Amino acid sequence: MEYPLPISRLIDNYMKLPGIGEKTAIRLAFYTLKMSTDDVKDFASALQEVKTDLRACSICGNITEADPCAICTDNSRDQSTIMVVEQVKDVMAFEQMGEYHGLYHVLNGVLSPLDGVGPSQLNIKSLIKRLQTNDQAREVIIALNSTPEGEATAMYLAKLIKPAGIKVSRLASGLAVGADIEYASAITLKRAVQGRTNL
Amino acid sequence: MEYPLPISRLIDNYMKLPGIGEKTAIRLAFYTLKMSTDDVKDFASALQEVKTDLRACSICGNITEADPCAICTDNSRDQSTIMVVEQVKDVMAFEQMGEYHGLYHVLNGVLSPLDGVGPSQLNIKSLIKRLQTNDQAREVIIALNSTPEGEATAMYLAKLIKPAGIKVSRLASGLAVGADIEYASAITLKRAVQGRTNL
Repeated sequence: MEYPLPISRLIDNYMKLPGIGEKTAIRLAFYTLKMSTDDVKDFASALQEVKTDLRACSICGNITEADPCAICTDNSRDQSTIMVVEQVKDVMAFEQMGEYHGLYHVLNGVLSPLDGVGPSQLNIKSLIKRLQTNDQAREVIIALNSTPEGEATAMYLAKLIKPAGIKVSRLASGLAVGADIEYASAITLKRAVQGRTNL
Repeated sequence: MEYPLPISRLIDNYMKLPGIGEKTAIRLAFYTLKMSTDDVKDFASALQEVKTDLRACSICGNITEADPCAICTDNSRDQSTIMVVEQVKDVMAFEQMGEYHGLYHVLNGVLSPLDGVGPSQLNIKSLIKRLQTNDQAREVIIALNSTPEGEATAMYLAKLIKPAGIKVSRLASGLAVGADIEYASAITLKRAVQGRTNL
């Protein structure tokens, strides 16, 4: 005997989510069965609304309900600085920090030839166009992860942008706050020494 | 800045699921954003269908698309034995084992006075009625977990059913197959000695 069809269909759907295996999916499916009908309806419509009510901002690529997004249309923000990030979640992380008041540009990935991701798969053309048409831009901050792909993408962008006379910077790398020197990787320590600051 | 409304609504919904905290919910919400529209639609309708297309079997309490359920209407099954289980998932577990061919009765919980669960909150009345109207019933197997609540429920049911001349048994308790004696609890070892079988 198998699970009734609606249950096994829901289990299959839960299993499509990252980090959710069969046992967890079964547990979640039976939990769903016990949820109130209103809660399940709300869940189902919330799922669909992220697809129907959100779009990518035509300027920066961030997700938004209204295009252009609230950050691009906020004139009180520093229009001279554009921070390049890999994904939408990174915008949220910097906004939660609350100390950055410039603009963003979401690449939607990083260069990764092995995965077939070249410059044309990323929001790079729109970044270049933005820098060409916006004469307020003075600095581009590359805020990509320090993975090999992130570093390669940073180098690629710097080569493209610098000739236009726009400053290109990247995030400081070094020891994370609270990290133990004894457990830090050699490359992290190397960066921390290279980037040392005066006290 | 917070997440766009549709995203935070979906995060809230994911967080209602058991074992899913805020970080995981955020990850799942952004993953949902990247899923194909068809996959999300299918997920949303699968969620709602477990609520709309499934009901409790009016005889045994198992979940089913058609009432009575496939097990209750299967005349090839042994009509003389009814296995009492706590929840629908337990029926699935015994069916997957494939060695039991009798009927089931799903209590939908166990007696737990501290949580306000008394006999009237469980499918006990329907079990008694079933035993009274079905003169084929010869044995009731109590297959509840060996928790204090499960044991108390087993005792309660045995007292109710035995006077009607129906045999009441319960699952053997002892060492799980593959378990280490050295790590077994004292009560498990006690049960294993008490229930020893001849070789």
